[in-house]
Amino acid sequence: MKTAILSIGTELLFGQITNTNTVYLSQKLNMLGYDVMYHYTVGDNPERVRAMVELALEDCDLVITTGGLGPTQDDLTKEMVCQVMGDRLVLMDEVLEEIAEYFRRNGRPMTENNRKQAYVPSRAKVFLNEEGSAPGFALEKDGKYVVCMPGPPREMTHMFEKSVMPYLQSMSEDVICYRMLRAFGIGESSLETKLMDLIDAQTDPTLATYAKEGECSVRVASKRKSAEEARVAVDEMVARIMKRVGEYIYSCDDEELVQVVCRKLMARGLTLSSAESCTGGKFAAAVTDIPGISAVFQRGLVTYSNEAKMEELGVREETLKKYGAVSEETALEMAEGLKRVSGSDVCVSVTGIAGPGGATDGKPVGLVYIGLVYGDKKLCRKIQTGDDSRHWNRQYSLLSMLDMINRNVL
Amino acid sequence: MKTAILSIGTELLFGQITNTNTVYLSQKLNMLGYDVMYHYTVGDNPERVRAMVELALEDCDLVITTGGLGPTQDDLTKEMVCQVMGDRLVLMDEVLEEIAEYFRRNGRPMTENNRKQAYVPSRAKVFLNEEGSAPGFALEKDGKYVVCMPGPPREMTHMFEKSVMPYLQSMSEDVICYRMLRAFGIGESSLETKLMDLIDAQTDPTLATYAKEGECSVRVASKRKSAEEARVAVDEMVARIMKRVGEYIYSCDDEELVQVVCRKLMARGLTLSSAESCTGGKFAAAVTDIPGISAVFQRGLVTYSNEAKMEELGVREETLKKYGAVSEETALEMAEGLKRVSGSDVCVSVTGIAGPGGATDGKPVGLVYIGLVYGDKKLCRKIQTGDDSRHWNRQYSLLSMLDMINRNVL
Repeated sequence: MKTAILSIGTELLFGQITNTNTVYLSQKLNMLGYDVMYHYTVGDNPERVRAMVELALEDCDLVITTGGLGPTQDDLTKEMVCQVMGDRLVLMDEVLEEIAEYFRRNGRPMTENNRKQAYVPSRAKVFLNEEGSAPGFALEKDGKYVVCMPGPPREMTHMFEKSVMPYLQSMSEDVICYRMLRAFGIGESSLETKLMDLIDAQTDPTLATYAKEGECSVRVASKRKSAEEARVAVDEMVARIMKRVGEYIYSCDDEELVQVVCRKLMARGLTLSSAESCTGGKFAAAVTDIPGISAVFQRGLVTYSNEAKMEELGVREETLKKYGAVSEETALEMAEGLKRVSGSDVCVSVTGIAGPGGATDGKPVGLVYIGLVYGDKKLCRKIQTGDDSRHWNRQYSLLSMLDMINRNVL
Repeated sequence: MKTAILSIGTELLFGQITNTNTVYLSQKLNMLGYDVMYHYTVGDNPERVRAMVELALEDCDLVITTGGLGPTQDDLTKEMVCQVMGDRLVLMDEVLEEIAEYFRRNGRPMTENNRKQAYVPSRAKVFLNEEGSAPGFALEKDGKYVVCMPGPPREMTHMFEKSVMPYLQSMSEDVICYRMLRAFGIGESSLETKLMDLIDAQTDPTLATYAKEGECSVRVASKRKSAEEARVAVDEMVARIMKRVGEYIYSCDDEELVQVVCRKLMARGLTLSSAESCTGGKFAAAVTDIPGISAVFQRGLVTYSNEAKMEELGVREETLKKYGAVSEETALEMAEGLKRVSGSDVCVSVTGIAGPGGATDGKPVGLVYIGLVYGDKKLCRKIQTGDDSRHWNRQYSLLSMLDMINRNVL
């Protein structure tokens, strides 16, 4: 089904926020088998919103809008969509009750403006908003569909997962099944080369590779008459891919590396501590983002200064002098010291030059050492990113720490 | 001048990349006084590109395109723009020489496809590409303008700064000046209420408020005949706003809170350490994201377990038993202990219940205590976010820590 995504919000036209909603929806819609043909963005202006919905429906069968449903502007998008789709707004008690309940739950007063949010098109299929006050809805006319969702990403993604996705799935005749394989330690072009014949020969399942901040992924999708048929086709292709590049794949189900590592640590009851220099707490922050990790993660030490490395971890002054703070020796002493103070099963350390400054003779920006102590194992991995971006070097170090745990412990 | 931004690239429609070009161009164009009315995205399909350029020119005087100029697709965008603007492609020797030079510089062979990139519309003002091989250009017809730039962000931004911006400045009569004020500790609706009369009465300068993850901001913009006139008008309005809500404003120049805090700490040579529980290293990670912070930030302790709080920071077992890990007493003992072990000028601690689980009798998810030791000062701030989102609670705690340092130290 030909689809357009319409983002509504003057702040987008000012470049004040990045349009992550459109990226999210494009990925999801493509996965569900919808052909995303256009992205449009327009400001909070009723006439232009209406003109844009009309325009989008000329070429597409489905238009998905985000934004323009806030309490101070709610008649805007809804009224305009009604005009285009030949409907009118009515007060829906169920929606009003849901909005009132949302404000009760959050202990905030409900205003008259919020009451207006309970008006929805009379023929609409309504999607309740569990994360905010503005409901979403879908409206059909002559085989053309408009789906409207609120703009705040948290509200939109929650509503999409819970209500809009099942609605869209029910509209499609074919069933799409897909799996997303995620890889670390191989570049997108190498991955593509290793799978080239499969990619060239693809009809169904289809294969596509993506790159994202040091990782890459392969999407395997099949569109069949039944879910079972599609699932079998996808699983067969996944097995073929795993045979070729399985050593790089850390998830076949679109899990992030940090999720995979934490899930496995929790399942095996292995405790974890970290000692970070160049990543400055990014590892601890990523791991503690996972709910329930407090059962496993014990302590994280961000030893940015040499004093901190010596005092907190017992790294020897001699080692720092002879080999430098960024060295295999220091990384290992950090991990060993961490083992002594924390007693955790898995102790990981990192030291490196994140950049943009800090390079010295023989030690370029992007040089990073990762230490790991687990049982009798004491390991160190050396990385040279060859890049001078601080953000990239820190991110790549974080992923390498997780990868090292995943390979050597789990 | 009414302006549309047209992004060309099928990968955008798949959601494979985030459209940062459009954010960048929207900011720059607004600053230059161009009214960005629409964003459009279309795939690498000649017919749809042509239709979209035509459509955009109906409503706008200027259309800026990015993408669709690569060596394998170069005739696509250029040919289509020629059709719309009534021109034809010709080989330009100067451009060909520039492309050849680019390949010589990079030690890569130049292909026949790259030679095709030297074709540009005969009437075009050409913008050479110093970062890649595809040139950009501007084409005018009957007072309507199309500017085409390559898609890779590095090539596009370089070309924009160097060539397109001066071109656009020379075309514009008015000058826009704006400032972005950023606030913490006040909600968007309260902020709006306090500025309501100014917002309602706005003609020039214009005011707009925005909300973003616990913070909000006010954009003040003026469009005048001269830059000086616009700047004075903006500064006067900023002064009026500061009088009313200055206590919440931490930056008048669109800096992030972490940047403001780190910049001030570095300027004053104050050292910093952190002890984190619920934020799990997010504070240390945010601070160490700032280049040069190693001169100031000394150590970060992520004391997730009670043992870590006692062993690393000397929090008393008695305190943990009597008041609990999430309490004013524990937060203060964490900060005091951190002062003892690190000796840093500024010692900040945090302990709280990030959720979604972990609530106990009288201690709901979202309850957070922040401790601060600075000189003789020992302070504690209690927060109740009222929210059960782990991500939000951690993010809000991070901002509160920064805000507490900014208010009480800097």
